[in-house]
Amino acid sequence: MSLAQALFTPRVIALVGASGEPAKNTARPQRFLRKHGYAGRVIPVNPTRAEVLGERAYASLAEAPGEIDHAFVMAPGDAVERALEDCGARGIPVVTVFTDGFADAGAIGAARQARLAARARELGVRLLGPNSMGLVDIPGRVALTVNAVLEMDRLPVGATSVVSQSGTLLGTVLSRGAARGLGFAKLVAVGNEADLGVGELVELLAEDTDTRVILLFLETVRDAARLASAARKAHAAGKPVVAYKLGRSPLGERLARSHTGALAGADPAVGAYLSDCGILRVDLLETLIEIAPLVAGREPPNLARAPRVAVVTTTGGGAASVVDRLGTLGIDAMAPDEPLRAKLAALGVRAADAPIIDLTLAATSATYEAVLAAVLDSARCDAVLAVVGSSAQFHPQLAVEPILRAPRHAKPLAAFLTPHAERSLALLAAQGIAAFRTPEACADALAAFFAWRTPRARPALAPVQWPSGIPRRGKLDEAQALALVRALGVPVVESVAADPPDYAHALPYPVAAKVRSPDIAHKTDSGGVALGIASQGEYETRVRALLGAVAAAHPAARIDGVLVQRMEGGLAEAIVGYRHDPLVGPIVLVGAGGTLAELYRDYALRLAPVSEDEAAVMIAEVRGFAMIRGYRGLPRGDLDALGQAVTALSRLALVAGQPVAEAEINPLLVKRSGVVALDGVALMRGED
Amino acid sequence: MSLAQALFTPRVIALVGASGEPAKNTARPQRFLRKHGYAGRVIPVNPTRAEVLGERAYASLAEAPGEIDHAFVMAPGDAVERALEDCGARGIPVVTVFTDGFADAGAIGAARQARLAARARELGVRLLGPNSMGLVDIPGRVALTVNAVLEMDRLPVGATSVVSQSGTLLGTVLSRGAARGLGFAKLVAVGNEADLGVGELVELLAEDTDTRVILLFLETVRDAARLASAARKAHAAGKPVVAYKLGRSPLGERLARSHTGALAGADPAVGAYLSDCGILRVDLLETLIEIAPLVAGREPPNLARAPRVAVVTTTGGGAASVVDRLGTLGIDAMAPDEPLRAKLAALGVRAADAPIIDLTLAATSATYEAVLAAVLDSARCDAVLAVVGSSAQFHPQLAVEPILRAPRHAKPLAAFLTPHAERSLALLAAQGIAAFRTPEACADALAAFFAWRTPRARPALAPVQWPSGIPRRGKLDEAQALALVRALGVPVVESVAADPPDYAHALPYPVAAKVRSPDIAHKTDSGGVALGIASQGEYETRVRALLGAVAAAHPAARIDGVLVQRMEGGLAEAIVGYRHDPLVGPIVLVGAGGTLAELYRDYALRLAPVSEDEAAVMIAEVRGFAMIRGYRGLPRGDLDALGQAVTALSRLALVAGQPVAEAEINPLLVKRSGVVALDGVALMRGED
Repeated sequence: MSLAQALFTPRVIALVGASGEPAKNTARPQRFLRKHGYAGRVIPVNPTRAEVLGERAYASLAEAPGEIDHAFVMAPGDAVERALEDCGARGIPVVTVFTDGFADAGAIGAARQARLAARARELGVRLLGPNSMGLVDIPGRVALTVNAVLEMDRLPVGATSVVSQSGTLLGTVLSRGAARGLGFAKLVAVGNEADLGVGELVELLAEDTDTRVILLFLETVRDAARLASAARKAHAAGKPVVAYKLGRSPLGERLARSHTGALAGADPAVGAYLSDCGILRVDLLETLIEIAPLVAGREPPNLARAPRVAVVTTTGGGAASVVDRLGTLGIDAMAPDEPLRAKLAALGVRAADAPIIDLTLAATSATYEAVLAAVLDSARCDAVLAVVGSSAQFHPQLAVEPILRAPRHAKPLAAFLTPHAERSLALLAAQGIAAFRTPEACADALAAFFAWRTPRARPALAPVQWPSGIPRRGKLDEAQALALVRALGVPVVESVAADPPDYAHALPYPVAAKVRSPDIAHKTDSGGVALGIASQGEYETRVRALLGAVAAAHPAARIDGVLVQRMEGGLAEAIVGYRHDPLVGPIVLVGAGGTLAELYRDYALRLAPVSEDEAAVMIAEVRGFAMIRGYRGLPRGDLDALGQAVTALSRLALVAGQPVAEAEINPLLVKRSGVVALDGVALMRGED
Repeated sequence: MSLAQALFTPRVIALVGASGEPAKNTARPQRFLRKHGYAGRVIPVNPTRAEVLGERAYASLAEAPGEIDHAFVMAPGDAVERALEDCGARGIPVVTVFTDGFADAGAIGAARQARLAARARELGVRLLGPNSMGLVDIPGRVALTVNAVLEMDRLPVGATSVVSQSGTLLGTVLSRGAARGLGFAKLVAVGNEADLGVGELVELLAEDTDTRVILLFLETVRDAARLASAARKAHAAGKPVVAYKLGRSPLGERLARSHTGALAGADPAVGAYLSDCGILRVDLLETLIEIAPLVAGREPPNLARAPRVAVVTTTGGGAASVVDRLGTLGIDAMAPDEPLRAKLAALGVRAADAPIIDLTLAATSATYEAVLAAVLDSARCDAVLAVVGSSAQFHPQLAVEPILRAPRHAKPLAAFLTPHAERSLALLAAQGIAAFRTPEACADALAAFFAWRTPRARPALAPVQWPSGIPRRGKLDEAQALALVRALGVPVVESVAADPPDYAHALPYPVAAKVRSPDIAHKTDSGGVALGIASQGEYETRVRALLGAVAAAHPAARIDGVLVQRMEGGLAEAIVGYRHDPLVGPIVLVGAGGTLAELYRDYALRLAPVSEDEAAVMIAEVRGFAMIRGYRGLPRGDLDALGQAVTALSRLALVAGQPVAEAEINPLLVKRSGVVALDGVALMRGED
């Protein structure tokens, strides 16, 4: 019996801690299994009852007769550990643990969870949870969960599967989807992911014949590498993966940490990771529920320009509410071009020079249908949106008929219905047409679709040898950090160490001088930097002044001398950074220099390493570089050289063992021709 | 009979163009009036039938017998004009025109509309529309509209009224609200607002005893002054006004223009205007539908710090979805402080050091209720959010009981329910408790509530005399613009005109020199600016070079000489601007200098004039000023002087006739002490 079978479609299920009181949480799995037509055997395990809700019960798993495929554990305390031992002894291949109080409850719980997972591995038992609400396989009629939404009378069958780090939100997706006429295949609440994690579940769903689209509700990412490879498998199988991930605000990150016991990664890093994996990311919870029909069976559009949507409507105000939102998301609603205008005219529709095609005056069903077909065929648009007005509520069939009859097309078709219109939504859902309850979810889904990229292939870059002479631990000083950067291939400002007593150097003027001290973190703030020194005479005066200022500010600091650097002139400053993110691993970042990247969050970020092509795309995303991209006739900077520097720094990810925690070139001076690193810092992992 | 009575609760309604075919749009008002229990007399007017849907019909308004309070015109073409004449002749006080093809249909239609409105004024007939879908008075049982959502069986009575520039969206609010258990008083679709506009309707609703909250769906603002005074009346009457306004993207603005025939104003100007009026603005359409119970009976919180929400939940994932969103909106979810923690402990609840209070393990209804009461009483929080999990769907009463029993409090209480749970939502709505379907609308509503300000009193600033010697038309040159700015009280760089042949001047060095020419718009681009001139010798050389460069670039330009300015040094550059917005009138703006304001949209904007206190709040909103606010130990700039400059420029709004279209100081140099304007432009209205 495969893992997937034992997990999703077990023939025999044991319910450890099953209650005989129907109103209790722990009675739910048994009730739900029966209610939703589970055809296999259910064995309640309860130390105090011989019968639970009409089924023969046993005091322990050990006593339960026959082969068992899946044990679902709800009992508190060390009953969990005992059940696991029994699973091992009985050869039960999968155990789902609903019981909480593990990594979700602090350090002691986390240690207990680590022991549980280790023991499961030893016993060869696969573990879902702990703190998992369970799972549902709708086509297989397995409702193995404590989630109260399973009280619903009929489970809607569909081809969308869901993996969720929140049991409640799993219920939200199922319950709201069902009310909208959307169906599901498998739904899994992963709990704390002590063993079976989101990544492995996506792998199973990529192979699952019932599943066409995979939805993820994420509070964190616990298995970045596994999920990345699983997402690539899903892509290869033609199954889009869509994520709604919390932690977009520092507040949300803090909550995710306290709530899941997981590490927090920077959200922009997670965003880059998801994009890299070819996972669509939605902004609104309802989009996650509604997006499946929009992406099912489709490929990433990989657009390299602003997307264009054609909007067909019988309500100006309703269309405007979506179009306005599309505009804020960088999507263009296109006015019909000449060929389309001619086609529409032939159908008796005079299109105004406006970004919508308003059929209010020409709204026979046949005209509407012909217009949709013409628009879907227009070469200029990337998707079609149909907005339906008030009639959708009380004349559902009539209102959505032209949309139901629209030709299936390579181009996505989405519908937004302005009134409360659950029957219309269900009619569209039944035909696999994407329909949205709110203008915002509609626009969000289209934006996620257009931002969708094929999983990125890792650039074919050679492994990088750690440069000799540079420490692999602790914090590097400026000279060491610049040497590291130079070894990676980034031009570095010419500089020499000048030592007491005379601080002699052989660089041509003008130069800059900076204090060298292991004890001073912020050189500039302590008066330890002198710029634009024009002559030997000025050099001597200003180095004396500099050393005096530093000694006054830091009387106890060891002063090794000064670093003398050639003064460089350029068009703009950039910051290029590398970081080992705790969740998603190595990332590289490029931003506008000075304080712009920080104040305005004006930077682009990717998983490292990146190719020069990818670096060019990153640079194009930074607004502040407008100044060196030809803005208002200003001179252009050498963006190719900037891209090469980004690629070079990103190659730190190719050093065996990935020893670098953080490295930053700040500033990197961008010139008309070339770039030059003026300052740098680097910190190795395991230190701070 | 008052306008409000004739408009909302007429005793006799004539339906001009009423159709006898029940399936037609034009049969709807008659069907809906009867269906929803209209008690008055309905007179169909139809030239070809003696009876329409069972009522005696007349060929024209002129022939219809008895007194008529309100005529609803659906007939096409010049039947509209004829109906208006009949209204005048018969003394019918109000006519609603559903017929479209007026300002919604280009210039010819706009002219026809202007004639219609002028004639209505002459006749003393008030006009709703044209292109209005009509109105509904639910307590009064008047469903005078063609909107198809009125097919619903029962109209939900409530105390929320709606004014909408889109008839369809009016139906959306009603239909979706009804499905959620939310009720309404009056709903009006204003159409093209040829006479009765949003402002006057808000005035009527401010006086309406059935109305407690006023919702606006806006695509544009056609009567800014009237709406502003109406919003102040509504505030004085204790009735919050909430707006959902489209046109947030350039695409949306363009659509609003083409769709409504109205002018487009800059959306940030409209945002400043709404805030100034004390109107709450929501971002999501669903928030508009759901927000009323949150604000009913409340005052603007006028918070001057980040708002704090306490979150009580039985579902970690559900709470996280709202909290994460609150974080992105700058709202803090607070971990319980010591006093609250002690109170919770006394209730048996051990609160974790996390931004939510999770009752999953302690969730008896009595505990939940006591916790809510304790949290509502906590001095540290500004609002309370209760998040309810899956049980809300099938045990609605049980799930929301503690929330229903929570004490009514000065502090707002909001609920988010994770599953599809319309009965729970309706139970909460029936008790006037704000409940939300999505985490995003919940967070959006709280953000709108916290951003809500008392309508701003106009600062008591004296009228401003136009300075003598400065033209009141056309475009001012740099010297004139700077003279205007100086007359307003802003320090201006010392400068003198230097004329051929010797370009002599008496300013001390260093100086800057700029070409003076009426024909050259971009001095810098043409080589017409020389900065940092250190001596008389350098001055002569560089002025020659400058004149040569300009002559080469613009051989035909008239050159009047150069403007010599004292070189000034400062900490940062700012931009201060004034504009007469076509929708909302005079506005003032302050932003970080250089290209930052433009590239990063980093500016703050208000209706002009502003007091110095208000200017200080504006300056605090500009991120780029962090650099002169003490960021990283950098020296602080004179923000008081910057504020004085903002106030000074804003006083252009106090010049009789408001002659200035646009004026800009760019850059305004901010020094450690004081500010100085280095360059300026100004353009009078009626020119470009």
